[in-house]
Amino acid sequence: MQWVKVLGGVVGAAALLGLGIIVGHFAIPKGADSPAPSASASQDLDLKILQTVMEQLDANRIRENLRELSKEPHLATSPRDEALVQLLLQRWQDPESGLDSARTTEYEVLLSFPSGEQPNRVDVVNSTGAVLFSCRQSEENVTGEQGGPDVVPPYAAYAPPGTPQGPLVYANQGSEEDFKELQKEGVKLQDSIVLTRYGGVGRGAKAVNAAKYGVAGVLVYTDPKDINDGKSLPNETFPHSWCLPPSGVERGSYFEYFGDPLTPYLPATPSSFRLNSDNASGFPPIPIQPIGFEDAQVLLCNLGGKLAPANWQGGLGCDYNLGPGFRSNGIFPEDGQVNVSVHNRLELRNSSNVLGIIRGAVEPDRYVLYGNHRDSWVHGAVDPSTGTAVLLELSRVLGTLLKKGTWRPRRSIVFASWGAEEFGLIGSTEFTEEFFSKLQERAVAYINVDISVFANATLRVQGTPPIQSVVFSAAKQISAPGSSGLSIYDNWIRYYNRSSSVYGLVPSVGTLGAGSDYAPFIHFLGISSMDIAYTYDRSKTSARIYPTYHTAFDTFDYVDKFLDPGFSSHQAVARTAGSVLLRLSDSLFLPLNVSDYSETLRSFLQAAENLRGLLEQHNISFGPLATAVEKFEGAATSFNQRIATLREGTPDPLQVRMINDQLMLLERTFLNSQAFPEERYYSHVLWAPRTGSVATFPGLSNAYSQAENTGHEPAAWAEVQRQLSIVVAALEGAAATLRPVADL
Amino acid sequence: MQWVKVLGGVVGAAALLGLGIIVGHFAIPKGADSPAPSASASQDLDLKILQTVMEQLDANRIRENLRELSKEPHLATSPRDEALVQLLLQRWQDPESGLDSARTTEYEVLLSFPSGEQPNRVDVVNSTGAVLFSCRQSEENVTGEQGGPDVVPPYAAYAPPGTPQGPLVYANQGSEEDFKELQKEGVKLQDSIVLTRYGGVGRGAKAVNAAKYGVAGVLVYTDPKDINDGKSLPNETFPHSWCLPPSGVERGSYFEYFGDPLTPYLPATPSSFRLNSDNASGFPPIPIQPIGFEDAQVLLCNLGGKLAPANWQGGLGCDYNLGPGFRSNGIFPEDGQVNVSVHNRLELRNSSNVLGIIRGAVEPDRYVLYGNHRDSWVHGAVDPSTGTAVLLELSRVLGTLLKKGTWRPRRSIVFASWGAEEFGLIGSTEFTEEFFSKLQERAVAYINVDISVFANATLRVQGTPPIQSVVFSAAKQISAPGSSGLSIYDNWIRYYNRSSSVYGLVPSVGTLGAGSDYAPFIHFLGISSMDIAYTYDRSKTSARIYPTYHTAFDTFDYVDKFLDPGFSSHQAVARTAGSVLLRLSDSLFLPLNVSDYSETLRSFLQAAENLRGLLEQHNISFGPLATAVEKFEGAATSFNQRIATLREGTPDPLQVRMINDQLMLLERTFLNSQAFPEERYYSHVLWAPRTGSVATFPGLSNAYSQAENTGHEPAAWAEVQRQLSIVVAALEGAAATLRPVADL
Repeated sequence: MQWVKVLGGVVGAAALLGLGIIVGHFAIPKGADSPAPSASASQDLDLKILQTVMEQLDANRIRENLRELSKEPHLATSPRDEALVQLLLQRWQDPESGLDSARTTEYEVLLSFPSGEQPNRVDVVNSTGAVLFSCRQSEENVTGEQGGPDVVPPYAAYAPPGTPQGPLVYANQGSEEDFKELQKEGVKLQDSIVLTRYGGVGRGAKAVNAAKYGVAGVLVYTDPKDINDGKSLPNETFPHSWCLPPSGVERGSYFEYFGDPLTPYLPATPSSFRLNSDNASGFPPIPIQPIGFEDAQVLLCNLGGKLAPANWQGGLGCDYNLGPGFRSNGIFPEDGQVNVSVHNRLELRNSSNVLGIIRGAVEPDRYVLYGNHRDSWVHGAVDPSTGTAVLLELSRVLGTLLKKGTWRPRRSIVFASWGAEEFGLIGSTEFTEEFFSKLQERAVAYINVDISVFANATLRVQGTPPIQSVVFSAAKQISAPGSSGLSIYDNWIRYYNRSSSVYGLVPSVGTLGAGSDYAPFIHFLGISSMDIAYTYDRSKTSARIYPTYHTAFDTFDYVDKFLDPGFSSHQAVARTAGSVLLRLSDSLFLPLNVSDYSETLRSFLQAAENLRGLLEQHNISFGPLATAVEKFEGAATSFNQRIATLREGTPDPLQVRMINDQLMLLERTFLNSQAFPEERYYSHVLWAPRTGSVATFPGLSNAYSQAENTGHEPAAWAEVQRQLSIVVAALEGAAATLRPVADL
Repeated sequence: MQWVKVLGGVVGAAALLGLGIIVGHFAIPKGADSPAPSASASQDLDLKILQTVMEQLDANRIRENLRELSKEPHLATSPRDEALVQLLLQRWQDPESGLDSARTTEYEVLLSFPSGEQPNRVDVVNSTGAVLFSCRQSEENVTGEQGGPDVVPPYAAYAPPGTPQGPLVYANQGSEEDFKELQKEGVKLQDSIVLTRYGGVGRGAKAVNAAKYGVAGVLVYTDPKDINDGKSLPNETFPHSWCLPPSGVERGSYFEYFGDPLTPYLPATPSSFRLNSDNASGFPPIPIQPIGFEDAQVLLCNLGGKLAPANWQGGLGCDYNLGPGFRSNGIFPEDGQVNVSVHNRLELRNSSNVLGIIRGAVEPDRYVLYGNHRDSWVHGAVDPSTGTAVLLELSRVLGTLLKKGTWRPRRSIVFASWGAEEFGLIGSTEFTEEFFSKLQERAVAYINVDISVFANATLRVQGTPPIQSVVFSAAKQISAPGSSGLSIYDNWIRYYNRSSSVYGLVPSVGTLGAGSDYAPFIHFLGISSMDIAYTYDRSKTSARIYPTYHTAFDTFDYVDKFLDPGFSSHQAVARTAGSVLLRLSDSLFLPLNVSDYSETLRSFLQAAENLRGLLEQHNISFGPLATAVEKFEGAATSFNQRIATLREGTPDPLQVRMINDQLMLLERTFLNSQAFPEERYYSHVLWAPRTGSVATFPGLSNAYSQAENTGHEPAAWAEVQRQLSIVVAALEGAAATLRPVADL
């Protein structure tokens, strides 16, 4: 029976991966039942194992993974999404190359879909209501992959249904400033339909801002200037280049928060308390619908009214006017209006995460997490399958070493395939809610590899300061793709760098917003997190993101031909993330350098100096903040010295564990659940969203900006003082965590 | 120089403790500089050390400690309170018997004091305003200790200033039901002064409830029926018995929350954000003043109106009428009114905690905390000095073993002397705010010994279920005071017992409210906590609490003559708490039995069965709660089996640490900072205040009761569902923490 099962698994895998893999498979010595090497409390990173992993990460296998993952659309909770759940389970339960165990966790979550019966429409109508022009309801079937029944038509997820109609106005990116400008120009916004372009502000914000001015409906399109470096003709775009075809439409979630909209702070189990969807917050207040630039051109190039400001102009080959209404010499009557029909529906759906674990040999209760989402808008070759293809290859290589008995990590490794990320990081957020306590107690770090390759130029890493050093260590020892002969690190520093007061010139690690599944880990749970990818040479393109993002043109061929022919960038990301993963899971001392937070704190403090004058005018003392930063710096420096001393000796296992607990938990000390009562999940006082203009502690920056904007009300300055005290308390707590543990 | 210092310390101690102690002191071999025994990762509880500690805990030294501690009034932040800070520091820094280190932490906190210039007054006035009768402004100087300038006059801390005047009404205990009853009886409450007796509801609640009915001012007194088993004559009361003299007045805090009122969730450092005191919440809304039963008798026995209900009658030797106003045949005119003059002032004061630490030899980053407050209302012999006297003796015995080099605990022990507890657990709460992260990460348990001896009959323990087993273990091995020959355990079970489904008849451990400094540890931080004392034989007295509680009669002689002559109960508490402390700090496996939570959860679940019908009528499924309880039970049972198996082998240090982390952190998993948004600090979903009548999970009970009272509004039932989901998520998280750590 066992043999039959194994054979079944092998045949399944073979079907997926092709003959070359079968050969490789049978060539690998069998050893699933061999015992793991016996655990030793001093087990440390084994450079030979690391080298083996680096060598075995195979570009072609990643390519084959990607082909399989992206061969059909796999919108969250669709049958193909569920089929991929089974594919992941099968891989992670494979007796030759799987993990110790794997399972799914399912949540019942609120998603939003266009109606199957009533397509969303955007029409130009005349004063009698006759339709003069209709926007496409789907993208052009250019490669044969855009026409299937599983290709969800373009829509704005969570936009409410409605059929507003009104004169058209061009509102640039739909930011607050844009609407103020329109108001200043005397453009009537009440009951209008505004056309906006992607970029500048978040998707949902366009509708939120518009609604404040009485706008009835919103259109959004991708301007070729913003995505195609100006190219807009069919023969200049995919499949002839990586550019977005004229009919391409970016889908996306317009939900303002993350996590299941109905179950904030609770795992969305079937029996969980749910908000009434009428009471749920964060949805766009008015209908909104995305369209392609082919249709946007027809609307925008026929608009009347004043000429829009220079920085509102785009790449559609005409002057952009503000409206309202159409110009007299265009193709539409001047009193023509735009009718937007949105028929989206909210639906409770079952979405699955897939989890797989490799049990740690020495410290099984310490988890290094590595994840990516699985769901896409259409085929999702780039987003998210470039990441999932890497995930599968990395888990295969590690699983194979595990099953052969040659390796077992010091700490546990948890792999995750998240569901319904595209709707708002839903699977990962529900996971952090369900396993809140375990993760808070035991999670060492979270590695996110979502889109692994945006482009072929350079590594790009976002993360909190403690992960900088381990990423640098990894990147220095891996060759960059291409013929430069440089390491990934040396290549990286050419594209993204900064001058560090500690290290001199180093690659710059970006900060974490809420763009992918790392958000609940860092903001809600305070787990040191990072996101790793290969990306653009910014001197060669100004595209907002890779051009076919969230469209039906994001397909395997797109990746294979334009994004990463040969898959060497995928391999580079697999190696970098794999090396980081192994270093975190296997090193005796956790390779998190907490003292790298000192530079961040110092820069926040320096920026806060700009606020000092006004703070002191309002009797808010600046001294405690400066003192707290100094205390952190001092504690972190001494802490690193203690680690260095311990490394020289033969520290006992509990001494090591104690240090590692300090390293693991430092990030947790920056959480304050009282800090941002109106921000769902955000509790990290250093990385909460910053709306104020001063690049300092976000709560302080925001409260300061609010105090300035509200005419210096005492309550607003009290909030500034409160935010300052919250930061001071967090920094003092962080310093206390790093001090010798028996210091009072 | 060193010698001079040591000698100085010795002489200081000698002055404090008298000749007998000097002899003992010099008889102890000097060894402050001897090295500690070398640490071994397998270090376990040493029964010989435990026995030594038990033997060395000296009743007479506790008595001498108490004499010193209570010789003068030491109201929070008074000069004598500060002198006791120095005494504690000196003891804990003593080279022969001190700890590894000691320090103070100071907070700037909002306290409330009566005016020095304008005494609070309670007068009966006639219609022209002439004063017919005045209540005492201070207690009678019965023992020569009630008259000094440091005896703070009776007052209601945090009651607002004001001089309301109106007809008098008797309002029993001032509960919501009591005011409803008065309303039902047609007694006019608007603009009245109500007289209430202590008991039934919290101090502040009397004013809160009264204000809802338009009452202008509140008086509160202690009825001899409630405190003196009816005795009320001078010759029946202290110094002739333990009973409260007629002039005795219970002081107290009338603040509804705990912690510094101006800095919720933030440590009250000098620079901290502070609420404007006008915006601070939790203070009584109307003036309130406590009086003695001698004065209450004059007022109450002259009241007119209907006869109060039978259960409102007390021990003042007359019929209690309801009022309003005085009776026609009494000593006051019928239209006589009561004038209450309250001149309390809010003041920012510096209050100190004293902290002392013994560094753990093996796991210095695990803290067992032991604390008591230091501040009293007047001399505070019982409250809190019976506890502080035990604290000092326990720290002396352990410090001496430490300095001699014969012992160092496996884990760190932190001793604490809290400031300003009487005003609302302020010192301890600010401590938990300042060291939130460190404590959350590292605190194993908190032992509180506030009033160590209420009376001589039996041990009384309050705590969370995991501490039951270690208290039982300790209590079984110590002889009860007196000649019974019983262990403390066997004596205890005679007074307080319950039938456990697991163990049969056992002593019953009470639950933790917010009566002393354990509150922030359990409710805010989720640290397993307990409070230990010796207390009454309830068949012999029905006193609410020991009679001189919070009065100027709570003096050394009161303890020495009536409460615990010979101090054997003090010694019993010192031994019990000391044994618990040593077991927690020295045992290889933490002696916390998390599976003892199963009985609590099962009983909460059974009580919740009473709600099931109505829940299901409102489509709230009960099944997930039952399942979650079962999962917890299963996980806890398996977990204990794994510990038993490990104990049989020779577990490695990291395996032990892993188990201990699960034991330590289990209590943390019951916290949910979103559960009770309106309850400051409360976040433990099992022990939050329960206002609903069903003895089940407090959030569920309260929401259910609310839904019933609000006529079954959908929003109220939604809150029931939300609370149920919060409990389910907490129990699932708790079970997950106890499962094998690499289980997905």
